[in-house]
Amino acid sequence: MAVKFPEHITLGEAGEILSSAFEGYSERFGTRLEISAALGHVLTEDITAARNVPHYAASAVDGYALRASATAGATAATPARLPEDGWQWMNTGAALPDWADAVLMVEDSSLEEGELIVYKALTPSANVRPLGEDVMAGQIIAREGEPVTPALISLFLCAGIDEVPVKRRAKSLFIPTGDEIISREEWLAQESQRSGTVAESNSLFIAASFRRWGFEVDVAPILPDVPQILKEYVEKGAAEYDLVLVGAGSAKGRRDHTIEVFKELGEVLFRGVRMKPGRPAMAAKISGKPVICLPGFPMSTAVALWSLVYPLLRQFAGERGPLLELAREAIGVKKIIETRLLVQHSSSAGIEEWLRMKTALVGGRLYSWALTSGASVLWALAESDGIALLPASALECERETPVEVWMTREVDLAKRVLFKGSDDPAIQLLVTPIRRRGADFAARAVGSMGGLAALSRGECHLAAAHLLDENTGGYNDVFIERFSKGQKWRRILVFYRTQGIIVQRGNPLGIKNFHDLCAQDIVFSNRQPGAGTRVLFDHLLREEGVSPDKIKGYSQICTTHMEAANRVYTGLAGATLGIKSAADALGLDFIPITEEPYELVIPEEYMEHPGIRALCDSLEDAEWRGKVDEMGGYRWPD
Amino acid sequence: MAVKFPEHITLGEAGEILSSAFEGYSERFGTRLEISAALGHVLTEDITAARNVPHYAASAVDGYALRASATAGATAATPARLPEDGWQWMNTGAALPDWADAVLMVEDSSLEEGELIVYKALTPSANVRPLGEDVMAGQIIAREGEPVTPALISLFLCAGIDEVPVKRRAKSLFIPTGDEIISREEWLAQESQRSGTVAESNSLFIAASFRRWGFEVDVAPILPDVPQILKEYVEKGAAEYDLVLVGAGSAKGRRDHTIEVFKELGEVLFRGVRMKPGRPAMAAKISGKPVICLPGFPMSTAVALWSLVYPLLRQFAGERGPLLELAREAIGVKKIIETRLLVQHSSSAGIEEWLRMKTALVGGRLYSWALTSGASVLWALAESDGIALLPASALECERETPVEVWMTREVDLAKRVLFKGSDDPAIQLLVTPIRRRGADFAARAVGSMGGLAALSRGECHLAAAHLLDENTGGYNDVFIERFSKGQKWRRILVFYRTQGIIVQRGNPLGIKNFHDLCAQDIVFSNRQPGAGTRVLFDHLLREEGVSPDKIKGYSQICTTHMEAANRVYTGLAGATLGIKSAADALGLDFIPITEEPYELVIPEEYMEHPGIRALCDSLEDAEWRGKVDEMGGYRWPD
Repeated sequence: MAVKFPEHITLGEAGEILSSAFEGYSERFGTRLEISAALGHVLTEDITAARNVPHYAASAVDGYALRASATAGATAATPARLPEDGWQWMNTGAALPDWADAVLMVEDSSLEEGELIVYKALTPSANVRPLGEDVMAGQIIAREGEPVTPALISLFLCAGIDEVPVKRRAKSLFIPTGDEIISREEWLAQESQRSGTVAESNSLFIAASFRRWGFEVDVAPILPDVPQILKEYVEKGAAEYDLVLVGAGSAKGRRDHTIEVFKELGEVLFRGVRMKPGRPAMAAKISGKPVICLPGFPMSTAVALWSLVYPLLRQFAGERGPLLELAREAIGVKKIIETRLLVQHSSSAGIEEWLRMKTALVGGRLYSWALTSGASVLWALAESDGIALLPASALECERETPVEVWMTREVDLAKRVLFKGSDDPAIQLLVTPIRRRGADFAARAVGSMGGLAALSRGECHLAAAHLLDENTGGYNDVFIERFSKGQKWRRILVFYRTQGIIVQRGNPLGIKNFHDLCAQDIVFSNRQPGAGTRVLFDHLLREEGVSPDKIKGYSQICTTHMEAANRVYTGLAGATLGIKSAADALGLDFIPITEEPYELVIPEEYMEHPGIRALCDSLEDAEWRGKVDEMGGYRWPD
Repeated sequence: MAVKFPEHITLGEAGEILSSAFEGYSERFGTRLEISAALGHVLTEDITAARNVPHYAASAVDGYALRASATAGATAATPARLPEDGWQWMNTGAALPDWADAVLMVEDSSLEEGELIVYKALTPSANVRPLGEDVMAGQIIAREGEPVTPALISLFLCAGIDEVPVKRRAKSLFIPTGDEIISREEWLAQESQRSGTVAESNSLFIAASFRRWGFEVDVAPILPDVPQILKEYVEKGAAEYDLVLVGAGSAKGRRDHTIEVFKELGEVLFRGVRMKPGRPAMAAKISGKPVICLPGFPMSTAVALWSLVYPLLRQFAGERGPLLELAREAIGVKKIIETRLLVQHSSSAGIEEWLRMKTALVGGRLYSWALTSGASVLWALAESDGIALLPASALECERETPVEVWMTREVDLAKRVLFKGSDDPAIQLLVTPIRRRGADFAARAVGSMGGLAALSRGECHLAAAHLLDENTGGYNDVFIERFSKGQKWRRILVFYRTQGIIVQRGNPLGIKNFHDLCAQDIVFSNRQPGAGTRVLFDHLLREEGVSPDKIKGYSQICTTHMEAANRVYTGLAGATLGIKSAADALGLDFIPITEEPYELVIPEEYMEHPGIRALCDSLEDAEWRGKVDEMGGYRWPD
């Protein structure tokens, strides 16, 4: 008989199900810890001071214990004089003698042959810390549900408390699975990389996240896709740990046995969450323990970890909160900002979507854009400086759609410039010199034409172009005139770049020039329409009188030089047109064809922007110029 | 010849001096760390991917590799059929065979006797992760100055990187000093507490803070106030550690040798910071190392640690930022809110003042108040949920003065009620039951009359009173009528409390009733004017016909029952008037005098406030009632 369980539920529902399934579970985490070890742990009882702090009337300063009445009327001009038996030296913290009721600060006195000269009148209790000033014996000094802070630890000691009742932290096990997954050692040792293998990197992400949260996680060996083995490990894990995480095997493919294992061992709580990525997440209760299956793609694992695992860990630790607030804590969100989409974004109906965002302040408005929506693209998570969670109701989100971004880094957006335009590795190298100058640089490679169009629409601070005008043989002029529509745009000639044919190492096809390239029956790796390099390629084809449909791979496009060169590097293509640095980076051969100017285009209004100033300054940076020279294929203007 | 150094400078100046004195110092922290160990460390170079990720064209799903062209026109209604040699099973991550250009998801297919039934038309590249989709060999994947995140660690591994160049963390030594300071072990072992001793608790605060920040600190033995010994330790510390902290000895007292030691060993950078607490902070450069003297009071240590030490630690770790932003990070500030002062606050001219704040939302406005300004009061730091830094220009700050509060906890202020009024230990016990009901309760003990007056001014959500009307012998009516000024105030009779004479254990003076108390020549511990207990005391005195000036200690006032009872407990007073629970908490004897009603007073408008509802609900809480019964001296109304 098939057991029913909820499928394809919302994130909110999944959180509710988990939270209630383990309602009483947090009882098992009650323990007593030595006060320092209790840092960050939640107290399970009110804590009462065992002592008065201070436990005697103490001097609050270094000075002289005396009777306040003896100082009546004393000033710097009319000091009082106390005989030797009328005062007693007090270190800070010393016990006030019975006969005294105040302490004179040393700064307000001098000593003359045993007499104390008093320059200030005191009231009784002056500079005396009364008994119990800080806390009194019997006073509640911390409460159930509060986390132990550094200040509390110190206070506990002072109040005579050596250990406190808290929730200990859950101990978790992560079980990576998958025939294609190989260990870190194997991955790094691979001489020539074996196709069809993937590094087991999720455990690094999970372990680092747990460490940042102050929790522990053990990692099991990588399991093959064999249900019996998975079953064995899950069963053992549920017996020995507080929480078990299974990596992958939750989709509906041939190898996705996890659901069967869960059904056999316990009760499936839910299968499938209506979010993207992270959709195949599922959870079960096995031997009374929570077992959560994290989908295998890095971003899916991250999302499930933040939104399902972390809130549960906090609940076990004795803390509750709204699910999204806890997810933000898991992510390490520094602040929430309201932005607008820089580019249109299509979201699926009825699905909450997690996006990795980058943000810029352009024309006085905060714009943000998703770096990619691919669950497999880890780079985007590392590169993003914010996360957005689009609601299930979001569908076609036009440019300017409001979007809330959870910022994960401190970014001074007033100092960040947004660059759109032609891609160039030398430009990518500018980020660090710009940051060293206290500003920041975000780039979107959209090609020369795309950059000018974006600049014209006010979507960025600067563009870069190397667009050949076939009629004149000149570069950029006519295009800039067309897009600027009379606005004043400054042009900065950064360098001349050598464009050429990038071919495999050793040039096995013996290509010598563009003519050879067209004559031979080889797969070409093309660039996108509007890219300066594409304009050049189409121009060269026309010069040779070759029709594009004669070029194999003409419609297979790449958006950067590196991407195009990579297709050659891995044998997917035999040649591409591109710049020398891209060929050099991958050890490919390069046949020079032409030299072109590469210009930055900046509206006059942005010339004083701190990011543009740092950029202009960085263009003169000797270290950067050295690196560009080293890359090769660039010539500085005179 | 005396060497000059800056004295009594601003916090900003102190930060500047430290930062520039150790400008190049952070070079020494450059190292290479294994990627997981590098979590949270700042990269010192741009990091370039050593591999393509993925390093082959991979299936993005579980499904069937095929030629997209073979699926043309396929729908659920009009499926395409592929013979056995036209498809191949693909696990997610498997390498796409050369002849295929797309992958059909298993959900969009079925198998019938070796034929693949295709329900969806695909375009080339569908469900294929192109080579280098995530990152490409040669691509910069992380930049100098960025901290290593969990996502980066995972990405590094995928990109073939095993270790990265980062700044290691500074290692610090803390040297506690002071003749009066005793070790934790000694402190906790003390049978009867020796006067004039203080627990060395600052090292617990410092170690816990460092741990929370991810830094290490060693703690030296507690040094006596002997310059030669301090010198030896500072010299050794500066040789072996990156940063040395000296606890106390920086004021101008007889024992404050630290300045002399600093002068002898190196260069004093500054002495004295114009802030409160923390004024005696100072810093030196010894053997090229930073040595900072933290004033000894707990709050002074905290403030100097946050504002001087932490920013320096971050600088050494390769991160810079505005001083106050870093201080907020050190404190663990969750958000900044704008509030107004609930009560007047006097600040000193030309001094920045650190305050420990509590906040409440009353009548639609955010009010906050300083718990205390005493540097020695650690409790206030633990109890506060925010920090305020008053500018040097602040002097007499009236009620309603705007003040920015750096919230250190997540508090749902909409659910917190602010109570002002008569102090009672049973009421203090209500906080936990109220919090368990999802609300919160903040209390200020201001006496019965003070509470009603505050309620009348709209400064709190509820008050509590037990005010005897001498004319009628009744309680509260006339006072509530006077203060409510026609507003509708609800009254809740919580319990009857027994008031009585609290005397030393065993009642050594043999007091039997109030008459005995007045007859004998003993020191009385009195309460503040406006407190219900004070009203009662004055009434009883009049009944006995005793003049207040005949009562020793009449003008020495305490603001809570516990504080008054504590004076009896420690022998500073022979008797006080108070409630039984206060006597019981300290094991004192209690002579019952009268029973009084204790009433909560709540304006009608707040009856639906979530905090008031939780409070009313908590008054019925069986566990709370059990605890109150256990305390004794309370009787529930019928």
